[in-house]
Amino acid sequence: MRVRVDLNISLDGFATSEGSTPESPMGPDWERLTGAYVATRTFRRRVFGDESGAGTVGVDDAYAARYFEGIGAEVMGAGMFGLHHFPDDPEWRGWWGDAPPFHYPVIVLTHRRTGDLDFSDGTSFHFRDLSARDALDVARDLAKGADVRVGGGPSTVRQFLREGLVDSLHVAIAPIILGRGVNLWSGLRDVTRDFTVHSEVAESGTVHVTWSRDSIL
Amino acid sequence: MRVRVDLNISLDGFATSEGSTPESPMGPDWERLTGAYVATRTFRRRVFGDESGAGTVGVDDAYAARYFEGIGAEVMGAGMFGLHHFPDDPEWRGWWGDAPPFHYPVIVLTHRRTGDLDFSDGTSFHFRDLSARDALDVARDLAKGADVRVGGGPSTVRQFLREGLVDSLHVAIAPIILGRGVNLWSGLRDVTRDFTVHSEVAESGTVHVTWSRDSIL
Repeated sequence: MRVRVDLNISLDGFATSEGSTPESPMGPDWERLTGAYVATRTFRRRVFGDESGAGTVGVDDAYAARYFEGIGAEVMGAGMFGLHHFPDDPEWRGWWGDAPPFHYPVIVLTHRRTGDLDFSDGTSFHFRDLSARDALDVARDLAKGADVRVGGGPSTVRQFLREGLVDSLHVAIAPIILGRGVNLWSGLRDVTRDFTVHSEVAESGTVHVTWSRDSIL
Repeated sequence: MRVRVDLNISLDGFATSEGSTPESPMGPDWERLTGAYVATRTFRRRVFGDESGAGTVGVDDAYAARYFEGIGAEVMGAGMFGLHHFPDDPEWRGWWGDAPPFHYPVIVLTHRRTGDLDFSDGTSFHFRDLSARDALDVARDLAKGADVRVGGGPSTVRQFLREGLVDSLHVAIAPIILGRGVNLWSGLRDVTRDFTVHSEVAESGTVHVTWSRDSIL
């Protein structure tokens, strides 16, 4: 059982951009940041429900396939679910509408909402006001031996990294300089120092860097 | 004639570390940042004068060889020459002692010192109080048709990038999170947007990213 993170970031470390709105939740730079990932066959099938076989099938797609593989539960911040934009709407069901791509339980860290939200296809959202460590304990139980993902956003990921709770960190780095947004790396000096690193360049120009703990004690 | 930059940075964009002293001019993180570069056969020969053939000969060495190739003159900031640490020592001849590795004219941007310093092996230092643009004009004349390097440090490079004066930017990215120092990317949103990008991973784990203007108008 490992705690895993995958994020799309720019070469200067920005994981989301400024200018987020309810209509454009990820901000105007989002497409540039995630374009290579969204173009993969796996993303198109899993997130858009596109079964036509369209999409790229190279290195980016291999990482996209691994993204959901072996995950049994997820923890995410309130902003990733959309609670910063829709704090008082009890009908809000997340950015993904009626077909969230998770198909497993998701803990949403928030003090603004409580209870659970169940979808028929295996996805469930559990709104909890928990510390990072306690949230992982709950997620581990729900994952039944599979891995747990810390999904995002970047501030949430940073908190888990800072507390040493992440076993595997994969960043898909778009070779662009965004210069604004939330920087994943702030305050994380040497957070991956004892990890094994593997780097690989995709056909799209995206640089995939993965740090993993050699062993989990 | 192109204006080129090569820098060693950490994955979070830091090009030098804090804690610089006269004894350890690049600070305590310098070895971690440049270890793969310093280990190459080219660096050992060119900078240390090691003619034994020792050193790595893979992807990092290919970039090291290109580092000096085709350069006819260089512009550097006062700090890179050491003038921040030795502002009032007219005998100071730079960090490289009696055998600087350049073998071409180098413009040092400073208002603290004037005049020239010549070495017998082709290196000369010219202390000038010039704008970025004017320094390039002088360097272009000295380069006699060859390329001009903007050598560093990162603040100097950033200034040339911000003014759109760089044609080729190569960063050798060590997969470490330094979290402190001078960040190359600050204030440079989309500085490479119209450039062609090429990425490559070396055996050492260093990620080489190179942006080039397609054509120079």
